[in-house]
Amino acid sequence: MIKSAKHIALVCPGGPVTRELAEKTASIAAARFGDSVKLHFHDQCFSAAGHFAGSDAERSAAFLEVANDPRYDAVWFARGGYGACRFDEALFAKLNDHARKKTYLGYSDNGMLLARLYNDGIGRPVHGPIPADLPREGGEEAIARALAFLVEGDASGVEPTARSGKKCAAFNITILAHLSGTDWMPDLSGHIVMLEDVGEYLYRTDRALFSIMGDKNVHNAEGIMLGRLSDIPENDRPFGASEEEVIKYWCARAGVPYLGRADIGHDGQNKIVPFGAAPVS
Amino acid sequence: MIKSAKHIALVCPGGPVTRELAEKTASIAAARFGDSVKLHFHDQCFSAAGHFAGSDAERSAAFLEVANDPRYDAVWFARGGYGACRFDEALFAKLNDHARKKTYLGYSDNGMLLARLYNDGIGRPVHGPIPADLPREGGEEAIARALAFLVEGDASGVEPTARSGKKCAAFNITILAHLSGTDWMPDLSGHIVMLEDVGEYLYRTDRALFSIMGDKNVHNAEGIMLGRLSDIPENDRPFGASEEEVIKYWCARAGVPYLGRADIGHDGQNKIVPFGAAPVS
Repeated sequence: MIKSAKHIALVCPGGPVTRELAEKTASIAAARFGDSVKLHFHDQCFSAAGHFAGSDAERSAAFLEVANDPRYDAVWFARGGYGACRFDEALFAKLNDHARKKTYLGYSDNGMLLARLYNDGIGRPVHGPIPADLPREGGEEAIARALAFLVEGDASGVEPTARSGKKCAAFNITILAHLSGTDWMPDLSGHIVMLEDVGEYLYRTDRALFSIMGDKNVHNAEGIMLGRLSDIPENDRPFGASEEEVIKYWCARAGVPYLGRADIGHDGQNKIVPFGAAPVS
Repeated sequence: MIKSAKHIALVCPGGPVTRELAEKTASIAAARFGDSVKLHFHDQCFSAAGHFAGSDAERSAAFLEVANDPRYDAVWFARGGYGACRFDEALFAKLNDHARKKTYLGYSDNGMLLARLYNDGIGRPVHGPIPADLPREGGEEAIARALAFLVEGDASGVEPTARSGKKCAAFNITILAHLSGTDWMPDLSGHIVMLEDVGEYLYRTDRALFSIMGDKNVHNAEGIMLGRLSDIPENDRPFGASEEEVIKYWCARAGVPYLGRADIGHDGQNKIVPFGAAPVS
């Protein structure tokens, strides 16, 4: 039986990646999945304009192009950074039927786009590892986990609670705090919302949770799970509460159940969380 | 004619101040305004619990106490920091008729409370200098400016546009981004909204403006003015746009007029912005 290859397009909604990173990602894909996968790094990934992987127009156009192209089975964001929220507002209305069938995989700043697509009911947004994770400890396994999911539908890398068939979503805390109050914020009623962050002072995470848990789109969530908060900088004085005390405080205040830890974070162990209900495996 | 003294109560909704700072503030008040003003630093200002000037309950209770007390003409926040958004939600319903007549002066993290009070229609929230500004260059003048406003109703320290009689409000950008999406966010329709920040990477300010300008409570603002963005840390690469290009970009995107610079910021020159329409002087 000849199995047709999965074609995965890669774009950078925020910061750029190097050609070396792209080649290394492609070689991992080839070594692990042979001819069953082809990665297509859009040239935009290597573009640079100030903080971004090309101008807002360039990044928006690259995403629209690959999302609408029937040759690609999925869109994989090559890196986060910052910039997805600067996408052209008008592009979302231009996404076609092909775009509406695709899987979109990424996390961190990419969560802005996952949120917007989920809100608009376009395709299947998925939180999970990206090529920029490669230099992390366990980075190669993270990339392989994402590829196994995209190429073979392998659910073994899906976060355990997300594998239960319950409606889930996963976000970076800082990103979700900024989505709050905007048209990009999806209705998370009935969802288990998994939250993670990296490199933020605990007081900032606490403040971000005021914003998230104060948003009516979160008030009817099934519950909140806390992923990993990594690289928390040391402040001039201790915050006075642990990260789990912080999340419990804000959950209690909003009347939303806290459901324990989630296996996601800015690290090589970061698991996959399809938005909505994932197929039970 | 014997003029009765103004009694000003001070509390710390976020971080604490030292007794030395309190004494120095009181001595400036005495030297400049003599018997016409009495400052009352609540003991809570000197309390410490982790990151905060006392527990959430302690800070909330101190604020409620001084706001409701008919002996005080105004409440002046002694410091920002972080913590106002952790105030007891139930306290706002307990604010009495005396609280409803008072002026509340502060900025930065205090903006959380100014927003909530403004949203609830309680008293007169005012953006302006606080005792914690004393160590800044021009800090003593900033304190005197705030006191002249509180004690004598002196409008010379009011921000020029706010002095025009137009409806205004002023916020720290990071704080307003976190208010967005919550019940604490006031309707800023018809307002000139002045924005300032300190110590944030430009990409973070840009992201915060996505959140602010994406909020429907800001869409019908009369316009946006940009105060000072100070102590912007240098990033690993330049952002690629100036701070004024950034604010203009987000204003254009939201269809809200950009009206130029405002004379506010985390510095000794920070001017006073009464929320709503200030009396024309």
